[in-house]
Amino acid sequence: MSDLSIDDAIAAVIAAGRHAAARGWVPATAGNFSVRAGEHIAITRTGRDKGSLRPRDVAVVRLESPLDPELSAEAPLHFARYAADPEVGAVFHAHIEVAALLGRHFVAKRELLLDGWELQKAFAGCNSHIDTVRVPIVSNDQDTRALAAEAERELTRGSATATATAPGYLVAGHGVYAWGRTPADASRHLEAFAALLSLHLHWLELRE
Amino acid sequence: MSDLSIDDAIAAVIAAGRHAAARGWVPATAGNFSVRAGEHIAITRTGRDKGSLRPRDVAVVRLESPLDPELSAEAPLHFARYAADPEVGAVFHAHIEVAALLGRHFVAKRELLLDGWELQKAFAGCNSHIDTVRVPIVSNDQDTRALAAEAERELTRGSATATATAPGYLVAGHGVYAWGRTPADASRHLEAFAALLSLHLHWLELRE
Amino acid sequence: MSDLSIDDAIAAVIAAGRHAAARGWVPATAGNFSVRAGEHIAITRTGRDKGSLRPRDVAVVRLESPLDPELSAEAPLHFARYAADPEVGAVFHAHIEVAALLGRHFVAKRELLLDGWELQKAFAGCNSHIDTVRVPIVSNDQDTRALAAEAERELTRGSATATATAPGYLVAGHGVYAWGRTPADASRHLEAFAALLSLHLHWLELRE
Amino acid sequence: MSDLSIDDAIAAVIAAGRHAAARGWVPATAGNFSVRAGEHIAITRTGRDKGSLRPRDVAVVRLESPLDPELSAEAPLHFARYAADPEVGAVFHAHIEVAALLGRHFVAKRELLLDGWELQKAFAGCNSHIDTVRVPIVSNDQDTRALAAEAERELTRGSATATATAPGYLVAGHGVYAWGRTPADASRHLEAFAALLSLHLHWLELRE
Repeated sequence: MSDLSIDDAIAAVIAAGRHAAARGWVPATAGNFSVRAGEHIAITRTGRDKGSLRPRDVAVVRLESPLDPELSAEAPLHFARYAADPEVGAVFHAHIEVAALLGRHFVAKRELLLDGWELQKAFAGCNSHIDTVRVPIVSNDQDTRALAAEAERELTRGSATATATAPGYLVAGHGVYAWGRTPADASRHLEAFAALLSLHLHWLELRE
Repeated sequence: MSDLSIDDAIAAVIAAGRHAAARGWVPATAGNFSVRAGEHIAITRTGRDKGSLRPRDVAVVRLESPLDPELSAEAPLHFARYAADPEVGAVFHAHIEVAALLGRHFVAKRELLLDGWELQKAFAGCNSHIDTVRVPIVSNDQDTRALAAEAERELTRGSATATATAPGYLVAGHGVYAWGRTPADASRHLEAFAALLSLHLHWLELRE
Repeated sequence: MSDLSIDDAIAAVIAAGRHAAARGWVPATAGNFSVRAGEHIAITRTGRDKGSLRPRDVAVVRLESPLDPELSAEAPLHFARYAADPEVGAVFHAHIEVAALLGRHFVAKRELLLDGWELQKAFAGCNSHIDTVRVPIVSNDQDTRALAAEAERELTRGSATATATAPGYLVAGHGVYAWGRTPADASRHLEAFAALLSLHLHWLELRE
Repeated sequence: MSDLSIDDAIAAVIAAGRHAAARGWVPATAGNFSVRAGEHIAITRTGRDKGSLRPRDVAVVRLESPLDPELSAEAPLHFARYAADPEVGAVFHAHIEVAALLGRHFVAKRELLLDGWELQKAFAGCNSHIDTVRVPIVSNDQDTRALAAEAERELTRGSATATATAPGYLVAGHGVYAWGRTPADASRHLEAFAALLSLHLHWLELRE
C-alpha cells in the first residue's frame, strides 16, 4: 500500500496533469488523475484544466466515502481500481487520441493484442518483445458505475493468446486508464500506451 | 451578457492568441480572436502574429460601429455572432488544419456529423458520446459580410439526424469559428474541435 | 532595397533560425538563412545548429564578393535571388518535410498548383482562395551554381493555369526556399508554405 | 580517440538525453546514451527518465570492465561499437517511432536503402543525394550480447547496391543506434535518422 503523504499525493496529481497536458493528452479539460495516500485518494475535481492544476483543484477523499459531486464523473473508475487491487498506488486517465481510436476500432473483440515491440517492456511484468500483451477494451458508458464494474470484470477475463496483460485498459472512443504502484510507474505506463498504440496503428496501416 | 472589463477582455484576447499559436493553429498571422465587454468588442487587428499580441494589437470597438479597416477582414463574422446571440461572450477563429481539410471535404453536405466520442461532452449542451453532433459547414467567400450572413443562416438550419449542435462552424479550406459564454468556454471549444475533428479524420481513414 | 543595419540583419538571421528550429524544419544543421542590409548580405555559415546561432555563426559579405568557403554551399541560391530582384530583403531555406516530399513527388511537372485554401492569402500578392498559385519545383543538384541558375530560369517561366506565383520554390527531395521584402515577410511565407503544403498533401490523401 | 574529460562526457550524456526527450524519442524511460572519455565510457544507468538525467544517473566504467548490473541491459551494444571502432566517440540509442516501424517492416531484407534526399549529407561520409545509403537492420533479441554480436557482423557486410553506409543501424520493432566521432556528430546523426526515416516512410505511402 502506498505510503505517500497527502501533500505528496496532491503534488503527484498536479505533476501528472502537467505531464499529460504537455503531450496533448487532455484537451478541453479532459482526463483525470488520482494518487493513493494510505486510506485516502487525491483526485482531480471536475472540469479543471489539467495542465495548470493547483492544490485546490485536487480533492482528497476516503476511498470508502460516498462520492462528492465535485469529483470527476469518472471517479468510480479510479476507486474501483484502488478497491480491487491494494498494489495500485496511482490511476491516470487521459484522452490519448490513438487510444480513443483503437479502442473504438477493436471494441467488438474486447481486446487489442500488442506484440513485437521492445517498448512493451515498459509495462511492469512484461519482459520481452516476444510477449503478446493483452490490452482490454470496454464500450463507453455515461453510467460510470456500470462502466467501472464492466472494466473490472473485463480485467479478470483470461485470454487465449496473450502471455502478459497491460496495466491499463481502453474505453472505446474515449481514452485510456493506466495505473501503477507509484505515480512514476503510472506515468511511465501512460507514456508506454501512447507510444505502443501509435506503433500498433501505424503498423496496421503499413501492413495493409 | 458578458461583464468583463475592457482590460480583461483585451487580456483574454492576448491569451487566446498565445494558446492557439502554441498549438500551431494560426500560422502566418492567420486567425482572429474577440471577446465581448459589455457594449464593446475587443478584437485582434489585421496581420498581427497571434502568438505575441500586445494590447496595441487589439482594437476595442462598439458592436454597432462601422467597421474600422484596421480590423481583421473577418470581423463581420465575429460581430454577426455577438449580434445574433447575447450569450456569446467570446469568438475564436483559428486555421486548424483538420478543420480546413474536413470543411472542404464535406462542404457539399453543408455539415459534418460527429458521434461516438466522449470528448463531444466538452461542447456546452452535449452530454453523451451517444449524441450525434452537427458541425455546420459553409463555403469560403472573400466577401466576409456575405460569408457572415451565410454562416448565420446555416446556424439556424435544422438537421434531420443530429441531436446536438456544436458551438462553432467550419469554413471550407479555411478553418473553424468557435464561441462560448466566456473566453474559457470558447478556448475549451476550440480545443475540442481540434481533437474531435482529428479523431473524425483518422476514423474515416481507419474505416476505409 | 532593404535599409536594415548589418546588426539588425544578423539579429534577423538568428531569429529566423530559432523560429525554424522550434518547428522542426532544420534537422541535423540543415537549412540556411540570409537577410540583406544595403550592399551586404548576412548569411549563416555552414554546419551550424540553426536553433542556437550566435553572431559569429553569421557571415556578412558583399553581394558581389567571391564566395567564401565558410559560407553554406547553398549561398549561390540566396545570392541569385538578391541579384535578380532588388525587392528581396530576406531568403530563408528550410528542410520542411512536406516540401522535400511534394517537391520530389511533382518534380516531373516542374510545379505544384495550390488552390482553394484561405491561407494562400498569406503569400504577398495573392488575395483569394480562388487563385491557383504556382509553386515552382526544381531537381536537386549538388552543383549549387547550376541549381541557382536553374531555379532562376524556372521562376521566369509562365504557367498556363496559375493566377498567382508563390514567393518561393521547392527543391525535390530537399526543401523550400522562401523570400520576402522583409525578414517578417519571409518568415510568414515559410510558415505559409509549411501549412499549405501539408494541407495539399493531406488533401491528396483524402481524395484518393 | 576521444579526448573528452570524464566530466565533459557525463555532461554530453545528460545533454543528449534531454535533446532526445524533447523530441519524443525516449518514452517511458526508453533509450540509452554513452560518450567515450579516453579509456572510460560514460553511460546512462537503467530505468532513468532520459529527459532529466543528473550526474548520478550516468555510470562511468572502463571499456574492458565486466558489466555492472546497474547499467542498461543494452550496454553491450554500446561497448561493441567502441571496441570495434576507435573513431567512435559517442553512441546514442533512441526509440524513434519510425525507426522501430521501418526496422520491423524491412527486417527480412536486413537493410533499408535511402536515396534521393539532400539530408543524407548530414551523415558523415555521404556527400550527395545521389548516393544510395545502406541502413543495416537486425532482429530484436533480449540477449543483448548476442544482439551486439549480430549487429557488428551486419555492419561488416557489403551491399550490392549501396554507395554509402549510415552511421547507425535499426533494431526491428525497437529503435535506432547512431554514433559519431563526437557527441555533436552522434546527435546530428540521430536527428538525420529521424528525419530521413520519416521521409522514407511517407514516400512509400505517397508512391503506393
